[in-house]
Amino acid sequence: MAYILTVNTGSSSLKLSLFVPTENDAQPLVHHLTASITSISSPPATFTVKPAEQAVSTTPEKHDDIHDHSAAFSRFLEFLERDCSIDKSKIGHVCHRVVHGGKYDEPVVVNEKSFSKISRLSDLAPLHNGAALSVIKVCSDALPDAVSVAYFDTIFHKSLPPHIYTYPINPKIAQERGLRKYGFHGISYAYILNAVSTHLSKPPSSLNLILLHLGSGASACCIRSGKSYDTSMGLTPVSGLPGATRSGAIDPNLIFHYTNKANKITHDPSLVVDVPVTLAEDVLNRKSGWKALCGTTDFAEIIDKAELHKGDTEEQKNTYRLAFDIFVDRILNYVGAYFVKLGGEVDALVFSGGIGEKSWQLRKAVSERAKCLGFQSIDDAANKKSGNGAWDIGTGTGKRVLVCETDEQYEMARQLCEAVLKK
Amino acid sequence: MAYILTVNTGSSSLKLSLFVPTENDAQPLVHHLTASITSISSPPATFTVKPAEQAVSTTPEKHDDIHDHSAAFSRFLEFLERDCSIDKSKIGHVCHRVVHGGKYDEPVVVNEKSFSKISRLSDLAPLHNGAALSVIKVCSDALPDAVSVAYFDTIFHKSLPPHIYTYPINPKIAQERGLRKYGFHGISYAYILNAVSTHLSKPPSSLNLILLHLGSGASACCIRSGKSYDTSMGLTPVSGLPGATRSGAIDPNLIFHYTNKANKITHDPSLVVDVPVTLAEDVLNRKSGWKALCGTTDFAEIIDKAELHKGDTEEQKNTYRLAFDIFVDRILNYVGAYFVKLGGEVDALVFSGGIGEKSWQLRKAVSERAKCLGFQSIDDAANKKSGNGAWDIGTGTGKRVLVCETDEQYEMARQLCEAVLKK
Repeated sequence: MAYILTVNTGSSSLKLSLFVPTENDAQPLVHHLTASITSISSPPATFTVKPAEQAVSTTPEKHDDIHDHSAAFSRFLEFLERDCSIDKSKIGHVCHRVVHGGKYDEPVVVNEKSFSKISRLSDLAPLHNGAALSVIKVCSDALPDAVSVAYFDTIFHKSLPPHIYTYPINPKIAQERGLRKYGFHGISYAYILNAVSTHLSKPPSSLNLILLHLGSGASACCIRSGKSYDTSMGLTPVSGLPGATRSGAIDPNLIFHYTNKANKITHDPSLVVDVPVTLAEDVLNRKSGWKALCGTTDFAEIIDKAELHKGDTEEQKNTYRLAFDIFVDRILNYVGAYFVKLGGEVDALVFSGGIGEKSWQLRKAVSERAKCLGFQSIDDAANKKSGNGAWDIGTGTGKRVLVCETDEQYEMARQLCEAVLKK
Repeated sequence: MAYILTVNTGSSSLKLSLFVPTENDAQPLVHHLTASITSISSPPATFTVKPAEQAVSTTPEKHDDIHDHSAAFSRFLEFLERDCSIDKSKIGHVCHRVVHGGKYDEPVVVNEKSFSKISRLSDLAPLHNGAALSVIKVCSDALPDAVSVAYFDTIFHKSLPPHIYTYPINPKIAQERGLRKYGFHGISYAYILNAVSTHLSKPPSSLNLILLHLGSGASACCIRSGKSYDTSMGLTPVSGLPGATRSGAIDPNLIFHYTNKANKITHDPSLVVDVPVTLAEDVLNRKSGWKALCGTTDFAEIIDKAELHKGDTEEQKNTYRLAFDIFVDRILNYVGAYFVKLGGEVDALVFSGGIGEKSWQLRKAVSERAKCLGFQSIDDAANKKSGNGAWDIGTGTGKRVLVCETDEQYEMARQLCEAVLKK
């Protein structure tokens, strides 16, 4: 089997990982390298490579000539051929992460028909699917012999029961227009579920978990018997938890008081997408969140400036502290809700995603308040260490508290291997 | 002191109660009668009177000539003078329930200035404040010597802390336009808090409670040390729990996929309001909820047809069962969240509002699932009885589970007495 390339497209970034399948069941994939191109819509773009053997990345290169995802992808192929002596024809499969999969309940090989179907459903999440669609196009042209497969973030949540995924709105209109809770971050949750299963030495189907994928996009997922039973995102990723630039749950009427042009199409040139985006979508996804509250998308900066040593005071807070407290509060709303949904039978609370993996302060704040549900106390030393796969940060009796380093790139390649081996 | 009239205005209904203040501190008010006029916007309107001494109401009268709140109010005054020999000049104070009070943090005497201020802030909740404003006008004309006072549902929630009431959106725009969580049902929560305090023989300020006001409009409130700490409704009453015709929390992008005219002003003649209403507001408040899901606003009918004996199955459900299960699920999301917010230190879970007071099946379904948080088991016999004030329905050890018959009319009159006596 040839190389597997996995592609994770953000609105202004591209992350590409190369894997080599093995015959070894215990380690079916060898990670070869990961390249990132960031700031695509605000040049100079930055190109960084992290080979699997090296702990640190190569020196980032600035590129003035990369203005779109197409140029970014070309730069990557050039790097493969020149610097790694890997012929692009040796890439047998390309796995694309696509955020919104609508009614798709499994990954789909991209051809003309499925591409047009994905384009149509992208109306539900133009900001999220748009860039991925443009990269799929570029990639199919550049690698005509590789098989491209779309992996949707929504698939993991196909197990949501009707009383969870149904919105209390006109059911005929909901059915016609596909208006229901879909849920996202599913590729990540699939990875976390497997990693936690390995760590706890229990089969996935036996596990009840509260999973937190906390990054610049953040969500929570309630796992019942190894399947997604509820999740915080909804029809689109804007529901639920706030994020770096995303509002999360707000009053559905709010946007009409924020702007009287909510349903107008925005013409912001920085939106590198092929599907029209409303001003509401733009405001709630890109102009809200902690960036709006305190001017930064960097959660580490928020932690630095939040004066957390001041304790849980209701006195005048700085805006960083306000953003931190809002995030902790909204996360705990889901922890409490999912605990009840699982009848209190919870195997573990799991932190993941960029912030979930890196911020010991956030983990501490959330875990301390979750203790009233019977979770373990946090072991401060364990909480400040990093690890591999999934690891414990709790101590003493109680339900376990874990951290898991998620890997969407690996998960797509793993699922591909599994599907190809099944044949 | 003369009569106190309390006025509770719905979009198509009017509820009026007459009280007489006493010198008796233990029972400062005597309830004289309550009149209801319903179906005002779909004549014939129905006029019903329930004198305090009688358990049952008088025979409802149908009125073809009542088409608006003004005519309904005139009919009430006529009834007072002719049938009760009460001269309208004996009404000293009129308490009006007004849903949205914006930044008001206490009740306000209605005069030209405050009326215009209330009108302006009603832009945030046109469907809810519009009808009340028109009744205040009518009432001031008909009772020129009475003092009218506006009681806002938002006042009770003035204690919400910043990290709860702040939405993660642009703070400058939020500040300018008053975009924050306000919370509603506050007059009812004030009543419930006092009734529960009496029942538990503990001062309100010592109480941590999870209050559920479940009616055709439904909300939850987290009481910490006798004050509102969080609540499910937000900028407007549409957030949070679904209701008879209200969607509750949905994806903020959903409405744009439901209709492409979301921010257009609706011209539905049945909207008896003085403030323009967007199609979004109309759809989410009046064309959603269990009416949209299963065709009825009557929760008793839903219970009847929901086949609850089938247990907690995920098999094909009828739409009544789906509506029931959605309601239970969403209520429990708040119960779990508020339990964590109170650090598990909860004095009682309290059911109130039309459905919370009447539906033992709903109470049973919610309480059974809340047991994992340490709440008492339900005593089936107690759960099927009705009571007065607040009463227990739980049995055995655990945190208490109560029902409370709420009374917004009484609460307004009580607050008025207290304010007048303070002078």
